[in-house]
Amino acid sequence: MSSDLIKGILEKNKLSISQGISLVENNSEFAPNLLSDLFKFTGNAFRLGITGPPGAGKSSIVNGLVKRFYKQNKSIAVIAVDPTSPFSGGAVLGDRIRMNSLDINSNIFFRSLATRGSQGGLASQAINIGNIFDAANFDVIIFETVGVGQIELDIIKAVESVIVVLVPESGDEVQILKAGLMEIGNLFAINKSDRPGSNKLATSLHNILTSKTYKPNEWEPKIIQTIATSEKGLEELIINIDLHEKFNKNYKLDKQKLDTRYKQSLNKIINAELGKKFWNHHRIQVLNNELLKEYQNRASPQVLSEKLILNE
Amino acid sequence: MSSDLIKGILEKNKLSISQGISLVENNSEFAPNLLSDLFKFTGNAFRLGITGPPGAGKSSIVNGLVKRFYKQNKSIAVIAVDPTSPFSGGAVLGDRIRMNSLDINSNIFFRSLATRGSQGGLASQAINIGNIFDAANFDVIIFETVGVGQIELDIIKAVESVIVVLVPESGDEVQILKAGLMEIGNLFAINKSDRPGSNKLATSLHNILTSKTYKPNEWEPKIIQTIATSEKGLEELIINIDLHEKFNKNYKLDKQKLDTRYKQSLNKIINAELGKKFWNHHRIQVLNNELLKEYQNRASPQVLSEKLILNE
Repeated sequence: MSSDLIKGILEKNKLSISQGISLVENNSEFAPNLLSDLFKFTGNAFRLGITGPPGAGKSSIVNGLVKRFYKQNKSIAVIAVDPTSPFSGGAVLGDRIRMNSLDINSNIFFRSLATRGSQGGLASQAINIGNIFDAANFDVIIFETVGVGQIELDIIKAVESVIVVLVPESGDEVQILKAGLMEIGNLFAINKSDRPGSNKLATSLHNILTSKTYKPNEWEPKIIQTIATSEKGLEELIINIDLHEKFNKNYKLDKQKLDTRYKQSLNKIINAELGKKFWNHHRIQVLNNELLKEYQNRASPQVLSEKLILNE
Repeated sequence: MSSDLIKGILEKNKLSISQGISLVENNSEFAPNLLSDLFKFTGNAFRLGITGPPGAGKSSIVNGLVKRFYKQNKSIAVIAVDPTSPFSGGAVLGDRIRMNSLDINSNIFFRSLATRGSQGGLASQAINIGNIFDAANFDVIIFETVGVGQIELDIIKAVESVIVVLVPESGDEVQILKAGLMEIGNLFAINKSDRPGSNKLATSLHNILTSKTYKPNEWEPKIIQTIATSEKGLEELIINIDLHEKFNKNYKLDKQKLDTRYKQSLNKIINAELGKKFWNHHRIQVLNNELLKEYQNRASPQVLSEKLILNE
């Protein structure tokens, strides 16, 4: 790996960081070496995940948080993970909207990540880009995701603090439980809280959260009512993020997150390598021959996999 | 595998089907054999996916569709995939609500699938349970999922037809694009369409959908405005499901889905086996030794994975 690129990233040079990100985004053959060389400079940033349904105002909350972190003399990177569509350049659009709403300088960095058809690697890419920012000595790295599917969970599992953004319309208890948001949130922001239903939702959430008994080393999630567009509640949100960060340090939960991230990265690399080695020319041919048969005449996936594995 | 269990499932016996499902849900050691034995009886059912944000009314739409399919003398299985929470028995609650709203007999089968902490296998479990219903000769299998994450995509990729349920509040164009729903829907149901904004959303959707050029073998998604609770629009929805099914058959897209599902199953089994073989006692020990070190002193995941793989 070019030592200039690494030097540039460690010096927080915007161009170098962008080059590094491009290598990761394009699955370049140089990306693994870059990430490997940067590894020993990572593990210092505070990683924050923000998730919630579309339209809840996650972007406004992120903007508000970025401003506040910036006032505390912190450098902030935002990685917005947008499942985008062939119908639009979703991520590009996202960048444009963001660029206008905040002063951009070398201590604030926004990056939208689009799926571009390949769902598989998105979580790894987001985490790896986070590692580049981490090595570049950003203080706070914010991951913004939509929804609570597997990609989001992979990202969210590897951050120190998770804010779930809801709106009063997010619905009654059953709906929230169904959305699977309860167990991932450390902080719940009820945004657009000037709308009807905000207090009702806060009460429902409170009832759900207090229905559980927390061990001393288990954080009891907090609920904060916000109106991001007029900055209401954002100060309280920042205070609670801070409290949660301190809690994590007290109980060494931050170390656990580091370990999770380490094992996650390792497993992704190993699984990809094992798959690449396994699917040699011969095995691909065996599969293709099977696919030529009528569905009901094929060996079951269980039988075929055994055959392919024994064939090693 | 007990030939009684298989016989029971093929005869659509409710008890046998439930037993089969339990084997899959509990990751029983007998599940792979059961699924393997049932394989040659699958591939006949029509698989329908229904997804959309929490609170959009997916369950009401499913109930309405089930009634209509039932009137057409079809047997229907519904698999509701609920990311659930330690705070509730989400799936149990779901079952109870459903049971009361429909006549249950041997031609209608509801099953809620909860994550129970293990995110990993949920998509495979849902698809495998679908295979049991398929072998039991159910005509229609409906997969109901929340959101558009990786689990949902894995399930959705393997069904013949996808309905995305939205509500007028689902937001403007940017929000819909962000949610990544556009490229997975074959039919868009704008539910609760008596609320303000329904026509505006329909127009926005229409504009997005028609901004793309469709090849002859590409289905142009349809938009249907519904009020599921009063059954409005459900007839039109059924007609369009039918049209899409015929379109798929015409262009052999149904065969493609079967192949996708076959390869998906095969890959899941193989990846699991390769992982199991790889992580032997020695390798686990190497990893654990690394985890004992301070984060920054560890080998990077890239370096450690290479070491572990060469160690073979």
